[in-house]
Amino acid sequence: MELYNYFRSSAAYRVRIALNLKEVAYTQLPVNLQRGEQNHPQYKQVQPQGLVPALRDQGAVLLQSLAICEYLEEAYPERSPLLPVNRVDRARVRAISEIIACDIHPVNNLRVLNYLSQCLDIGEQEKISWYQHWIEEGFLALEQLLTGEEYPGKFCFGDTPGLADLCLVPQMFNARRFGVDMAPYPELLRIESNCQSLPAFADAHPDNCSH
Amino acid sequence: MELYNYFRSSAAYRVRIALNLKEVAYTQLPVNLQRGEQNHPQYKQVQPQGLVPALRDQGAVLLQSLAICEYLEEAYPERSPLLPVNRVDRARVRAISEIIACDIHPVNNLRVLNYLSQCLDIGEQEKISWYQHWIEEGFLALEQLLTGEEYPGKFCFGDTPGLADLCLVPQMFNARRFGVDMAPYPELLRIESNCQSLPAFADAHPDNCSH
Repeated sequence: MELYNYFRSSAAYRVRIALNLKEVAYTQLPVNLQRGEQNHPQYKQVQPQGLVPALRDQGAVLLQSLAICEYLEEAYPERSPLLPVNRVDRARVRAISEIIACDIHPVNNLRVLNYLSQCLDIGEQEKISWYQHWIEEGFLALEQLLTGEEYPGKFCFGDTPGLADLCLVPQMFNARRFGVDMAPYPELLRIESNCQSLPAFADAHPDNCSH
Repeated sequence: MELYNYFRSSAAYRVRIALNLKEVAYTQLPVNLQRGEQNHPQYKQVQPQGLVPALRDQGAVLLQSLAICEYLEEAYPERSPLLPVNRVDRARVRAISEIIACDIHPVNNLRVLNYLSQCLDIGEQEKISWYQHWIEEGFLALEQLLTGEEYPGKFCFGDTPGLADLCLVPQMFNARRFGVDMAPYPELLRIESNCQSLPAFADAHPDNCSH
């Protein structure tokens, strides 16, 4: 498979973890967001939104990180299941994933930050406050949910890593980049530490990407 | 089942359509976002983010509209399937859903609009431009994708309505509320019109909600 990737994109980071968990070999096709390569007409034919990631599998191009992860789950259900078996538990894991992928990450995406500075003349410090605000609001809700008995185990759900974990770890990487104080989230830190001990997560880290 | 609902919430509107397509009887529990009821401690025990919708099914509380729709799909796979059978097609339907649920809707959510006016002193006209911008950017990508041969049929995918359609129709309702010109999106209009002819969609309309 081929992954249109940017090392620092947390949506691409999710898919890199999923590919590693599923033990799928893939080639990285770097799309440099800082240089604006996502807006080149050639890339927009691949991904009309001009966002990463996109995954090419035997001619089919797949978009949107969670849709790609669900695809990998359906293609390789037996290798490191990303979702539990029980229907309510599956909904719980998907809910954690979507709190991150819908309600935290997109509000802090590069295109939104660019709009704030370029169209609304928002200064650097106010942009950092914006970034931190949405992470802190989301992390507070996640910390509350994940300490509940509905979410047992070493990871977000149970003793094996899954869809929620591969969303959480990249979001925590972003949080640190923008100076969010992580002390109020001991449960998130515990889960992150358990994830980071696994090669599937460590190998997907932005530092290990081709640029 | 019981749905924590606000008539104008497009995320709740998605779930109302899904419940109707699945022919699941449910009670609406109104949470008035304009009156700030989503931030009452009692509601935050149900949904720690203070967002609607949430769905209660036999004691389990489920969060996040797409996770809820996937739950309904797994609970009632035989009634109006929300996803196609083929794995690549499923990924395509989920991608359309997530372009709306991740990249359009959350950036225009009430809490974000409130932050723009209350913390960044953004005026009413600039807020409307913000709202329109993210819809127009997303709709352009959707229009391009949905006119492609990967997305055949009367609806977003095929000749029966599914997950992507129940995301699209509420987003188009929002777009009109904020004065977005819909003329550039004939494919979206065609699909919307096919959806609106179905009682599952018409009955879920905000005008038909208890307040």
